[in-house]
Amino acid sequence: MSTSAMPEAEFHFDFGSPNAYLSHLAIPQIEAQTGIAFRYVPVLLGGVFKATNNASPMVTENGIMNKREYRQAETARFLRDWDVSPTTPNPHFPVNTLQIMRGAVYAEGAGIFTPYVDAVFRHMWHEARKMDDADVIHEALSESGLPADDIMAGMGDAQVKQKLVDYTGASVSRGTFGSPTFFVGDEIFFGKNTLKEVQAEIELARG
Amino acid sequence: MSTSAMPEAEFHFDFGSPNAYLSHLAIPQIEAQTGIAFRYVPVLLGGVFKATNNASPMVTENGIMNKREYRQAETARFLRDWDVSPTTPNPHFPVNTLQIMRGAVYAEGAGIFTPYVDAVFRHMWHEARKMDDADVIHEALSESGLPADDIMAGMGDAQVKQKLVDYTGASVSRGTFGSPTFFVGDEIFFGKNTLKEVQAEIELARG
Repeated sequence: MSTSAMPEAEFHFDFGSPNAYLSHLAIPQIEAQTGIAFRYVPVLLGGVFKATNNASPMVTENGIMNKREYRQAETARFLRDWDVSPTTPNPHFPVNTLQIMRGAVYAEGAGIFTPYVDAVFRHMWHEARKMDDADVIHEALSESGLPADDIMAGMGDAQVKQKLVDYTGASVSRGTFGSPTFFVGDEIFFGKNTLKEVQAEIELARG
Repeated sequence: MSTSAMPEAEFHFDFGSPNAYLSHLAIPQIEAQTGIAFRYVPVLLGGVFKATNNASPMVTENGIMNKREYRQAETARFLRDWDVSPTTPNPHFPVNTLQIMRGAVYAEGAGIFTPYVDAVFRHMWHEARKMDDADVIHEALSESGLPADDIMAGMGDAQVKQKLVDYTGASVSRGTFGSPTFFVGDEIFFGKNTLKEVQAEIELARG
């Protein structure tokens, strides 16, 4: 099969999702094994929930016996299967991610998307910082060697704000209802525990 | 590794679940590939929902945009990946499965469990019969060469009724909240789309 059959793999994420963070830790293994680079797409989870009338599992699964324990078992298997470290419980959860998500859109335009995304995921879920506090964000970005002043100014840019709205709307139009969501071509996969399927789908599409 | 390390694989099912039926179609492939025979455990889904305060996805996911389409995409991939035929839409859905589930418990004691389970799944989801109507059940079982009179008498047996309650309660105690549920040793997996993981878990446990 020619390289023109290489499928596009996408990771639609919000920094507020611990399962998106864990996916971010596993994705490099899929990239190494398949030779496909994922396209990361910032998608505001609050906007997704509003557009689809959905809510976080903490809300929709609240009061259902055994569900919470099942999610924990799924996560334990994920950590084992991908050999990644667990999240650090973030005492500030849920963190309003609007500013740092806008920052991702700015970073994309500024050519610093990959280091920004990696740093912010780490600040949120490894260092468990309060990443909806402007001072905390500024300090964290600076420590990571990122141009904090420029990024935080960029968060207020009208085009940046609109682009995040557009990314979110386009993702919902393709079927997104939560985070993390993956696409391989037009096939949609929801939740970190589909990543093995995502990998298999890439391999299938590659032929 | 000795054969004593062979894990126990279990399939906790209710005939009312189309996803349990599709799992039933795929399980023989896992059995052939791993050499492990699944233990089928009849578990009354209505009892599970009552005990866990859960409901069917048709209820819990109702009104959430994109969810229904996602479930359809998952099912399409399942049919493709396991090369099995789709369910025949059952116009009588939801069918009250209490009698045919009790019948499964009776059939287990009577040594006709496997042919009974296979026949009833087929009557429900391939032939789309109204399997909560006594006349329909009797005719279907007879056509499948099963002792319909004995089975239908057995459905009324107090010990049979209690055993279904006990199976259901024991399953919930181990973490079940819906159907289909699979166990590999103590590891619990929910939903037909975990079957690839179930297979991998069996292979991991076998060493």
